[in-house]
Amino acid sequence: MGKKLTSRSEDYSKWYNELVVKADLAENSGVRGCMVIKPYGFAIWEKMQAQLDKMFKETGHENAYFPLFIPKSYLSKEASHVEGFAKECAVVTHYRLKNAEDGSGIIVDEDAKLEEELIVRPTSETIIWDTYRKWIQSYRDLPLLINQWANVVRWEMRTRLFLRTAEFLWQEGHTAHATKEEALEEAEQMMHVYADFAENHMAVPVIKGTKTESERFAGAEETYCIEALMQDGKALQAGTSHFLGQNFAKAFDVKFATKEGKQEHVWATSWGVSTRLMGALVMTHSDDNGLVLPPKLAPIQVVIVPIYKGIDQLDAISEKVEPLVKELRSKGISVKFDKRDTHKPGFKFNEYELKGVPVRLAVGQRDLENETFEVARRDTLQKESVKADDIVAKITSLLEEIQKNIYKKALDYREAHITEVDSYDEFKKVIEEKGGFVSAHWDGTSETEDKIKTETKATIRCIPFYGEKEDGSCMVTGNPSVQRVLFAKAY
Amino acid sequence: MGKKLTSRSEDYSKWYNELVVKADLAENSGVRGCMVIKPYGFAIWEKMQAQLDKMFKETGHENAYFPLFIPKSYLSKEASHVEGFAKECAVVTHYRLKNAEDGSGIIVDEDAKLEEELIVRPTSETIIWDTYRKWIQSYRDLPLLINQWANVVRWEMRTRLFLRTAEFLWQEGHTAHATKEEALEEAEQMMHVYADFAENHMAVPVIKGTKTESERFAGAEETYCIEALMQDGKALQAGTSHFLGQNFAKAFDVKFATKEGKQEHVWATSWGVSTRLMGALVMTHSDDNGLVLPPKLAPIQVVIVPIYKGIDQLDAISEKVEPLVKELRSKGISVKFDKRDTHKPGFKFNEYELKGVPVRLAVGQRDLENETFEVARRDTLQKESVKADDIVAKITSLLEEIQKNIYKKALDYREAHITEVDSYDEFKKVIEEKGGFVSAHWDGTSETEDKIKTETKATIRCIPFYGEKEDGSCMVTGNPSVQRVLFAKAY
Repeated sequence: MGKKLTSRSEDYSKWYNELVVKADLAENSGVRGCMVIKPYGFAIWEKMQAQLDKMFKETGHENAYFPLFIPKSYLSKEASHVEGFAKECAVVTHYRLKNAEDGSGIIVDEDAKLEEELIVRPTSETIIWDTYRKWIQSYRDLPLLINQWANVVRWEMRTRLFLRTAEFLWQEGHTAHATKEEALEEAEQMMHVYADFAENHMAVPVIKGTKTESERFAGAEETYCIEALMQDGKALQAGTSHFLGQNFAKAFDVKFATKEGKQEHVWATSWGVSTRLMGALVMTHSDDNGLVLPPKLAPIQVVIVPIYKGIDQLDAISEKVEPLVKELRSKGISVKFDKRDTHKPGFKFNEYELKGVPVRLAVGQRDLENETFEVARRDTLQKESVKADDIVAKITSLLEEIQKNIYKKALDYREAHITEVDSYDEFKKVIEEKGGFVSAHWDGTSETEDKIKTETKATIRCIPFYGEKEDGSCMVTGNPSVQRVLFAKAY
Repeated sequence: MGKKLTSRSEDYSKWYNELVVKADLAENSGVRGCMVIKPYGFAIWEKMQAQLDKMFKETGHENAYFPLFIPKSYLSKEASHVEGFAKECAVVTHYRLKNAEDGSGIIVDEDAKLEEELIVRPTSETIIWDTYRKWIQSYRDLPLLINQWANVVRWEMRTRLFLRTAEFLWQEGHTAHATKEEALEEAEQMMHVYADFAENHMAVPVIKGTKTESERFAGAEETYCIEALMQDGKALQAGTSHFLGQNFAKAFDVKFATKEGKQEHVWATSWGVSTRLMGALVMTHSDDNGLVLPPKLAPIQVVIVPIYKGIDQLDAISEKVEPLVKELRSKGISVKFDKRDTHKPGFKFNEYELKGVPVRLAVGQRDLENETFEVARRDTLQKESVKADDIVAKITSLLEEIQKNIYKKALDYREAHITEVDSYDEFKKVIEEKGGFVSAHWDGTSETEDKIKTETKATIRCIPFYGEKEDGSCMVTGNPSVQRVLFAKAY
């Protein structure tokens, strides 16, 4: 296990970086900015994927797969999209290597230069809408509700495991609709699906809202988002859903025949969440002892550690534990009985604490005699002795309780970190000293937004979806405003 | 649905290409050699993935994720590997685009040239073994049993949907072991897992065997494979599992401390199957009317088509059908009740035949009166009338029967197409006229193998794993041989 973690109060950023590596979630690879997702981290991501995939299918979506590469010319077709995405990306220029004539190794074969460069997809709107042109002729072909699980690449200069990596895994939904209303409904629906997933599975409370024009996705007419708050008071955008209007349909000439026989451009949405969610998960719940995982996403929900001397004691413990393991598994609970004789109980306790296993059972000689288990919960670190007869019921209720408790804890923190301010001086003070979301009036202009960003590093995270209408005046310019918006420093 | 399919006898290759597109499995994209996997095709691939993933986990493997890019220098580290893979691959040379100064569009920014080119992974041994060096110190860290689901790119000049595409989806297992014996066992085990999957889920009979030296994976000391036979008499390699010896451990300096405290190089395997299996599935079972899917992998197992005039008749049919749909779903059977009023029953029948739905039910007025369903099975195209009371039992048994029947049909075809020959003349005749596998004695040299390949286009598909030892003499050179091997023309 090595040395203890840096504490959050000492250096939050360092704590996060250490935790991700020590808890075996991910690590940096030999390729600049690209991470290796380790088995334990990947098992959490698989659970996220499975749940999201289920929710997408329940809302009528199907999966498909589109090419990794995008011809350079495709990117140029939608004007604002190319500005947003063509800048930092991986460009494939050649398709062959060869042995150097001087024997120095392998080199790029200059004879194998592509006529048109290919971009490793930073997002797939262009290649997908180029395909949709062939798939959509009539209103009968609509809506088209498709999702893709894929890797994407954005050549970020400063990378951090999960939060910002050159390559990351994500899903991207791309839907096509006959009417503007239906597309808007879809984009809004997916924001709600993401929020449902974040709150009820990740136990991460989020605020739903829309982005300001300057924070919108490149090519979108409206961007819906969910914003979470990390323990250091910084916000994290956890998912976005875009209403793309007819921009991509026009750029790629995708029209359909209406029931009345007219030709019209199709309406579009796209929406995505990524392995960034792993970062949000870690930073929302974990503590100075390591990960705290919500039971619904924990690869191991219950770990059982035997405390014994010699094989006879271990056999006696196993005899008691194995039927319990079987019973818990039959209830769909994932259990690990860690009988390794290469490590001591104390080492194992630390390891599972670091890895955020929600419930830990320990069984020693006295427990055998008393017919009890020592039960420890990861979220509060509380321990108690539980009668063997009650253990299954206890574990079942504890898993539910932990899921609820860590959500509530995160929600309480978030609620305590939304501050209403009415002056720019107060705003600066709160952003600097307290952090969290600051709710304030803004005049709706990009100029004011930019000024605030430059001066305080805070950005408008969202215009809250369920925010009350309230007349007020912009804290910076004094111009009229009809609703408070949420500012924060952000990841 | 458009025009009818080209028949297999007319042009098998054209039949395949048309079928893949018309059945909505996949299509070519605007990117050379890269396919789009359409929702219906992807739903089949998802079922394959889910089953394989389950089998991998049952045999102790975990999933992880490694970078898409491989630094050029990594490829050079294992000598025979670089020969096999460095040739045709996508090379990333730059990380930025910019607007052309003359306003002509976006161009590669020459200032953003990578110091070392990155290769889009054609397979991941090198990047993974570079990572394993950090993960493996002691015998306690072994075995390391990891799988990755990923996209890979090999710049193929001639591509065909699913069978050979520049980008394809696959899984690649990469394991590390303390002993040679254990690694050999693992490689052999995965061949058996693949064969189990092919036969019991895809209903595709396969022959297990090992590859000759010249057909081995680049960097392997032994390659285990499963070989299937397509309806045109050509073989298709459906999966491979490699014993890599200590080659990659030596190239990437991966050593472990043994129990006795000695430092030794680790033993390796790798194994993979890809979206190529989709091609094998299509070509093994399908007929001139379209796809024939094994029930275990069919996205829709049962389709129900109402035959009606007017909304009252449809309502009466729906009243009878909806409880059935519910009951079938509760048994885990995927059902589609196609009530679309935009298409006629005849059109729907053709569509589901083309898409290979195993069981089709039709319900009209007379069925309502008689309390029956018309049941059609896709494999034999037989129809019968079944009493409503018996329909659930009938469907359940029919799904099992179809799964068995199409396997048996493919097995009978394969058995009828293994021909033993003892002379090279006979060999040439069989390869040319009958096709299929030819079982013959071979002297074990690459020279003879090459000569046969050049003269007949047939290659040694495998040295059968369960082949009888039998003294004989090579059909070409007359030199001694101890076992017959299987030749065929192949995809």
